[in-house]
Amino acid sequence: MSQTELDRQFAFLAEADKLKSVERANTLIDLSRRENSAEHSWHLALYALVLEGQAGEGVDISRVIRMLILHDLVEIDVGDVPLHSADGQAHDAPEIHAAEAAAARRLFGMLPASQGQAFLALWEEFEAAETPDAVFAKSLDRTQPLIQNLASDGIGWAEYGVTCQHIEDRVGARIARGMPAVWAELERRVRSFFNAVDP
Amino acid sequence: MSQTELDRQFAFLAEADKLKSVERANTLIDLSRRENSAEHSWHLALYALVLEGQAGEGVDISRVIRMLILHDLVEIDVGDVPLHSADGQAHDAPEIHAAEAAAARRLFGMLPASQGQAFLALWEEFEAAETPDAVFAKSLDRTQPLIQNLASDGIGWAEYGVTCQHIEDRVGARIARGMPAVWAELERRVRSFFNAVDP
Repeated sequence: MSQTELDRQFAFLAEADKLKSVERANTLIDLSRRENSAEHSWHLALYALVLEGQAGEGVDISRVIRMLILHDLVEIDVGDVPLHSADGQAHDAPEIHAAEAAAARRLFGMLPASQGQAFLALWEEFEAAETPDAVFAKSLDRTQPLIQNLASDGIGWAEYGVTCQHIEDRVGARIARGMPAVWAELERRVRSFFNAVDP
Repeated sequence: MSQTELDRQFAFLAEADKLKSVERANTLIDLSRRENSAEHSWHLALYALVLEGQAGEGVDISRVIRMLILHDLVEIDVGDVPLHSADGQAHDAPEIHAAEAAAARRLFGMLPASQGQAFLALWEEFEAAETPDAVFAKSLDRTQPLIQNLASDGIGWAEYGVTCQHIEDRVGARIARGMPAVWAELERRVRSFFNAVDP
């Protein structure tokens, strides 16, 4: 029996359940456990809603939220690669990008063709980080873990040996590109945090 | 020092982190643990994207997704009330509704006033389940746990003594209202599941 469109969509939605088992480097604010990539994606969508007023010209928040809902699905195959792992070198390694692209083709390929292609295009747009929507989405994706880390005494940063300068370079530039006023405030908080730790 | 808008928004976003610790009745499909309400909310937003083609006249998927991102935040104060608990009586009890309404006022009240009011209105619209957007969102909210339960051998149903008739009454009517074709397919699968368990 051939699969209907609905069969394919239900199978994709069941496969997506696995994102709830992908563990990230940062913890919940109460330090009870590490965050998973599914709840992180929800939190980012909420960030987009709340910080909508920070978006620059030409940003379509509804497209941003779609990107954020889809952006980490590839981690079902590849896992989460922490931003600060391998002294910041692993996250943008070409082999990681290739593995994520293959995962995107597999996962979105489970859907009816035209829908799968549309989702793949949205994911690729996010990854390329060039359009206003993708730039804003990427800013949010750097802001949320930073706020988690600040609120949980920087435990995640300590674990990876992250310095104030690492955050300025790996996180700040990205946040500032999409939300300059947010980075101005967070930079103040980050500096104050590190000054308190190592005055 | 008076709080800026950004201070309030960051505080709300940190408070929202607690939704990741609210446990639901149903499990992940691999049965490894119970699902939490934050990752459930992400999954629902993905359901909305994937099943967009099932939406009836006048449904605005972007508004539906906003509702779904916000809809369970009240559980930070109230917890999740399983649909099938207390023989299906607890979920719609007036005291639960009152507690959830108070939670919505507290949580959305953390935000800048106009934003908080807009979020509260969207949550109230979802709860009332009358507009096309809310009807569709509620259908998705019943569909996702049903598919989780089907895919995980009905463990959650067995735990609450749920019968095929309970599902038709408590779940089917709601799904059918927003997505009749989806319920037609799921009803077939549910009947086939219960026939296999108790032929």
